[in-house]
Amino acid sequence: MALIVQKFGGTSVANQERIRSVAQRVAETYDQDNDLVVVVSAMSGVTDRLIQMAKEAMENPDRRELDVLLATGEQTTASLLALTLRGMGYPTRSLLGYQADVVTDRSYGNARIIEIGARRIQALLRERNIVVVAGFQGHDLNGDITTLGRGGSDTSAVAIASAIRADICEIYTDVDGIYTADPNVCPRARKLKEISYDEMLNMASLGAKVLQIRSVGFAKKYNIPVHVRSSFSREEGTMVISEHEGMESVAVSAVSHDKDQARITLKKVPDQPGIAAKIFGPIADSGIVVDMIIQNTRAGGQTDLTFTVPKADFKRALQIQKEVAQAIGAEDVFGDPDIAKVSVIGVGMRNHSGVAAIMFNTLAKERINIMMISTSEIRISCVVEEKYTELAVQVLHTAFGLDREEEAG
Amino acid sequence: MALIVQKFGGTSVANQERIRSVAQRVAETYDQDNDLVVVVSAMSGVTDRLIQMAKEAMENPDRRELDVLLATGEQTTASLLALTLRGMGYPTRSLLGYQADVVTDRSYGNARIIEIGARRIQALLRERNIVVVAGFQGHDLNGDITTLGRGGSDTSAVAIASAIRADICEIYTDVDGIYTADPNVCPRARKLKEISYDEMLNMASLGAKVLQIRSVGFAKKYNIPVHVRSSFSREEGTMVISEHEGMESVAVSAVSHDKDQARITLKKVPDQPGIAAKIFGPIADSGIVVDMIIQNTRAGGQTDLTFTVPKADFKRALQIQKEVAQAIGAEDVFGDPDIAKVSVIGVGMRNHSGVAAIMFNTLAKERINIMMISTSEIRISCVVEEKYTELAVQVLHTAFGLDREEEAG
Repeated sequence: MALIVQKFGGTSVANQERIRSVAQRVAETYDQDNDLVVVVSAMSGVTDRLIQMAKEAMENPDRRELDVLLATGEQTTASLLALTLRGMGYPTRSLLGYQADVVTDRSYGNARIIEIGARRIQALLRERNIVVVAGFQGHDLNGDITTLGRGGSDTSAVAIASAIRADICEIYTDVDGIYTADPNVCPRARKLKEISYDEMLNMASLGAKVLQIRSVGFAKKYNIPVHVRSSFSREEGTMVISEHEGMESVAVSAVSHDKDQARITLKKVPDQPGIAAKIFGPIADSGIVVDMIIQNTRAGGQTDLTFTVPKADFKRALQIQKEVAQAIGAEDVFGDPDIAKVSVIGVGMRNHSGVAAIMFNTLAKERINIMMISTSEIRISCVVEEKYTELAVQVLHTAFGLDREEEAG
Repeated sequence: MALIVQKFGGTSVANQERIRSVAQRVAETYDQDNDLVVVVSAMSGVTDRLIQMAKEAMENPDRRELDVLLATGEQTTASLLALTLRGMGYPTRSLLGYQADVVTDRSYGNARIIEIGARRIQALLRERNIVVVAGFQGHDLNGDITTLGRGGSDTSAVAIASAIRADICEIYTDVDGIYTADPNVCPRARKLKEISYDEMLNMASLGAKVLQIRSVGFAKKYNIPVHVRSSFSREEGTMVISEHEGMESVAVSAVSHDKDQARITLKKVPDQPGIAAKIFGPIADSGIVVDMIIQNTRAGGQTDLTFTVPKADFKRALQIQKEVAQAIGAEDVFGDPDIAKVSVIGVGMRNHSGVAAIMFNTLAKERINIMMISTSEIRISCVVEEKYTELAVQVLHTAFGLDREEEAG
């Protein structure tokens, strides 16, 4: 007998038929004498439709009111799943964000969970109820509804799991786990049996497609094992867990890539104190998120500075930097929207030397030019020309021994 | 400057275009320096669609969970109206039932308001906000969502008006007021300028089409003037108010009818103490609502007993009474589903004698047989054959001087 949190995403509850098969899965888990909290998303497509409605009502929707509207999506799914389970004869209660006492800050649309008062969830569990909680939503200290941002139901699930000290948090989704690389780009990608929280946090786009990154931070902090698996099959998925010794046997666990990158370079920037603030202040003020930053010192008190931004913000960022360059007396500004970031990730990197060398050699052998490099303790990222993305991922995947055995060369 | 509650029903907020025209109306009222609470229903059709969804999930939907689902309807309208008003530049906040602190009992699906903690509404009004409240919903003392039954938004509006001591509660709907009779049945029906709470309470079907009867009880108790008017025109509607002397100048204010009636008669019932309980106990137990009851004493310790039930319950009620008749030794049971109730209503009846006589004579002149009669202080109702309903309403309307002047004979 265990205390389990199960989370079902939008495609898993897309219609009443799918909700019924979710209910069957939940019922099975309950019948195996487990205590069970089920967190649900809005039916797929509903959130987008509600956003569209809000935009028709107000061009740039007020965020507090938008959250009131968006919260109806998860409320609908939660009540329908509870009704379905009750129809099958199971004692069930739905709770909305405020009823489950998911307390957040006031950042409507992207709120952060402050704490979860699990009193009511626990009381319902003691009476052997299946507790269905509307994900994605909470309330601030005023009692106003807040939402947690795209993928927020993952964070709801993991946060609830931590609040009730669940044994495990199962994330049911439309993919069957975390892969060593994107299978669409790298046909030899393998599903990982397990991966550490830190590796997930470093995988950015590869991981973010499957799990809201914020939820991984929560899981790490409270050490909640997260099982990412498919709601359409019975196969085991990938366990996201604490790092353990066995994980270090391989140097690299996965290869990820991110095409949503554009590069901007300022040439011959006068190397003075406070110059970075002058360059990045206006970018931050306009809400553009900078990813990598590289600075090379030239001779003569000048420096070249390169950074990356999301592709959608490229033109705006370039325009801002042209003004900045003039103001600070940089020689030139140029940019390139046709780039991508390729990364290798692995906790084993800490003990295996030479990972960077293998990475650079592998890319060089294919004549792929490396434009920028950045590293963390367990990740090495290279910016390359966008057209080489697939090739780079594939050769790195092979070079680090990640290919599926049955198909490996 | 006044403190006004405006309530807009489902057809008034049926789509975004109509919500926009509601917003314009609200804005006008606000611009005239009024303080304003706006109560909204779900968009027309939404509640029925949600009930259908619930039935697909669970044949006989659990009422608590159904209320969670239904509440999304008003939540959606409230946020969309708030967004629209904010888009027009008006300071606006939406509140859900629990946020407006509409406390009810636990009768899910048909809850009664216990009290309204108007603290938050009043705080928002003090800052000159337009407060948009989701109608139809409240919460019980556990914090669970409840709904107030069909037309419940009317009761939300009047209850909020009483809690904040509003000067007036305006009910915007798809009809332009209360009529002296159903215009579909009686082409000479006139719109009433005003009507007393008690007359509304006695008009049953005629009034209930326009206003949830429970809301009238609330309005009477707290003496809130209710203005029933059309959201599609600027015309004044009908004021539902306290009785005043001028109202007694006419004997009859309106003629109403109700075709949803069927009649069951038990013949030669032994006239013993406790016999009524034996007859009506099983009917009540099966959830059938009895309207009129007439008992005529015969000679020889026997009595004939006739009562009416809704047409939909006729067959079931007849079957129950056949068993009852055998158990208590009544001679016979028979029934008639083809009947209707026609009523004349008016507070003037208290001072005008002979209203009953005029009613009976008028029907007799048309050879309409009266099957049952029941009276209250301000109402006389006759059961007649259903086929005579329209004729009965028309001749009574004329006889009591209610016809529109331009067309009256």
